[in-house]
Amino acid sequence: MPVAGSVAIVGTATTRFGVLHDRGYLDLLAEAALGAIADAGLEPGEVEAAWLGTAEPILAGLVGDAGTAVAEAIGFGPRPVTRVSNFCCTGMEAVRAGALDVAAGEHGLVLAVGAEKMRDVTSRGSLLAKTANQTHPTLAKGRTAPGQFALLATRYMQAYEVGIESLARVSVKNHEHATRNDKAHFRDAVTVEQVVGAPRVAEPLGVLDCTPTTDGAAAVVLAPVAWAERHAPRYAVIRGVGLAVTDGYFATFYHEDEDFLGFRSTRAAAETAYRQAGITDPRAQLDVVECHDCFTITEIVNTEDLGICGPGEGVGLLESGATAAGGDTPVNLSGGLQACGHPVGATGVRMIAEIADQVTGRAGGRQVPGARTGLAHTLGGPGVVSSVAVLGAP
Amino acid sequence: MPVAGSVAIVGTATTRFGVLHDRGYLDLLAEAALGAIADAGLEPGEVEAAWLGTAEPILAGLVGDAGTAVAEAIGFGPRPVTRVSNFCCTGMEAVRAGALDVAAGEHGLVLAVGAEKMRDVTSRGSLLAKTANQTHPTLAKGRTAPGQFALLATRYMQAYEVGIESLARVSVKNHEHATRNDKAHFRDAVTVEQVVGAPRVAEPLGVLDCTPTTDGAAAVVLAPVAWAERHAPRYAVIRGVGLAVTDGYFATFYHEDEDFLGFRSTRAAAETAYRQAGITDPRAQLDVVECHDCFTITEIVNTEDLGICGPGEGVGLLESGATAAGGDTPVNLSGGLQACGHPVGATGVRMIAEIADQVTGRAGGRQVPGARTGLAHTLGGPGVVSSVAVLGAP
Repeated sequence: MPVAGSVAIVGTATTRFGVLHDRGYLDLLAEAALGAIADAGLEPGEVEAAWLGTAEPILAGLVGDAGTAVAEAIGFGPRPVTRVSNFCCTGMEAVRAGALDVAAGEHGLVLAVGAEKMRDVTSRGSLLAKTANQTHPTLAKGRTAPGQFALLATRYMQAYEVGIESLARVSVKNHEHATRNDKAHFRDAVTVEQVVGAPRVAEPLGVLDCTPTTDGAAAVVLAPVAWAERHAPRYAVIRGVGLAVTDGYFATFYHEDEDFLGFRSTRAAAETAYRQAGITDPRAQLDVVECHDCFTITEIVNTEDLGICGPGEGVGLLESGATAAGGDTPVNLSGGLQACGHPVGATGVRMIAEIADQVTGRAGGRQVPGARTGLAHTLGGPGVVSSVAVLGAP
Repeated sequence: MPVAGSVAIVGTATTRFGVLHDRGYLDLLAEAALGAIADAGLEPGEVEAAWLGTAEPILAGLVGDAGTAVAEAIGFGPRPVTRVSNFCCTGMEAVRAGALDVAAGEHGLVLAVGAEKMRDVTSRGSLLAKTANQTHPTLAKGRTAPGQFALLATRYMQAYEVGIESLARVSVKNHEHATRNDKAHFRDAVTVEQVVGAPRVAEPLGVLDCTPTTDGAAAVVLAPVAWAERHAPRYAVIRGVGLAVTDGYFATFYHEDEDFLGFRSTRAAAETAYRQAGITDPRAQLDVVECHDCFTITEIVNTEDLGICGPGEGVGLLESGATAAGGDTPVNLSGGLQACGHPVGATGVRMIAEIADQVTGRAGGRQVPGARTGLAHTLGGPGVVSSVAVLGAP
């Protein structure tokens, strides 16, 4: 049967995110995988299959290029492990693939783990950068991620008469949230003055508008809801999951169908997930949201694309306090990509783990009282691929 | 319900394999994808989701790094497309993931496409080689694929008192088969004398013991068997599918549990697929086989690991003619990796397409009369991951 309503998340784990020069890719992967299995009350031998999300193994010397990394990290063989990769949606894709595996009845208890080791090479010295620069003229001319989202920010600010202080409030909010997350890369609050005064990366985005470059891993254990009902101490249910790819990597920002004020991929993925989950009024029905705040502008347009507010209302929503801790639809209580950082393959799994913890009342100092329904969202490529999942209490 | 018995292959397509400097990655991907969709009698708009197999997008300037490549190649958005990667099993993994998608009932008509563009850079100049050499001392010291399988060949030849002429007969057989495959990279027959006299790559393997480096793509369309029964002109049924990862990339040849005369991963994957498909006597029940002959020695040990013959009997099986065209269990009638070449992400999909064509009576000059059951097998990593699928007529 389809994933929605039939697959449960029965265990979660996230490593510390940060600059972890003392820990390798396999160390992080093992900590997350074994942590999620233990959290589910299981032994590693009880898990039947795994799916690995790693976006760019070339940053870690090709380790993580295939599912074999899971076998190497935790002695998992001989069992099925497959790597998936879908730009910044890679982590959520590992969860979606694992959920399909469970939903099909092919395997019962399935691990989804995401890991990324990004800090062992410099950004400019990485083979990823060299590959891009050597092979594509658009990238070679500076179409970096900050450069692309700076264009989006500029367009948005012009269309809706928004200043950089409004963007900065995303960073302020998410850094404040991260003061309650001991896994976050950054745990210090920042002020609007600090964000707008920070060194510029690509105008109008400064360094505090951008997610940092981070090492980390996260994992969840998936099981049939029927199994969870009998065996799991507590679990979350996947109520809906959507993935939408709209175009190729180099097309987004030039596509004639784009209004350049948001992303069709997010709208399409949300439509699928909402239809499955019966979400007709996201702001009223979602108790907690993790969305892809790779840059401050991204969270603003994502809240619009996800239907938490209408087009052009993202800044108003933010400034009303509705998306902050204590608001009616808190967004990125973990600190988000802004403060947790963004180890690409890990991010989506971390978000799923966070929302699963929220709807099972296990989010500690970040817990939204009574949270029963939450959403995780990642955006990649940039903007050509989005993944949306809605999780709920049983 | 699980994949076995519930998922059909309703369309197939394979591009020409070869050194295709006039065609890019996206060109090959589009030809295969649109070809398989047309072969199924469908329009692209009817396909609900896709899975992409590409192993090393860094060889093609990172295009193929995510599912977005399918949207870019054939205008597929906004729909779900996910890339999978599992070393040389990548292609079969795209099919397995797509089959899980169908088996879960998440999507109905699903495309699985594999593509790899390997010839636009030199082997030594590729970023893959640079990454490996820069980052892992074992690879930097020459542990290349031919070097690794040369160790296997040496061990096998010593254990079973086999000469290089016996290995050469795999190359001779598969090149002869390829004379009837107009998609193959090489279509000329070779002799034992030519194979043993060819320039040495890594003793005891010469250049005609090795798969060439090749560009190509292949695709299949998957559907529920219940749909195929009503709508497909003809179709093959996935009777069993197994994936087994035994260890990490660098462990295989040094693992104390390995006898170094074959691969545990193949044995484990075959056990799963055979159990599902009800195969108890592979030689009697399989009418046709495509297996992973990346080197001549590999086909010999694979026929043993797949249970087509017993341990140490692979050369005898080969020399009896049983695995040649007209034999009782023909192996690699396509020409195999030896003569088709091995565009990594495409290979497993090509094999699945070949076997699907055989069991639906559409294999042309390579048709095995009355073939009803066939097997596809890939081995990757090297040796730490294997995928086995059994296909059958309805």
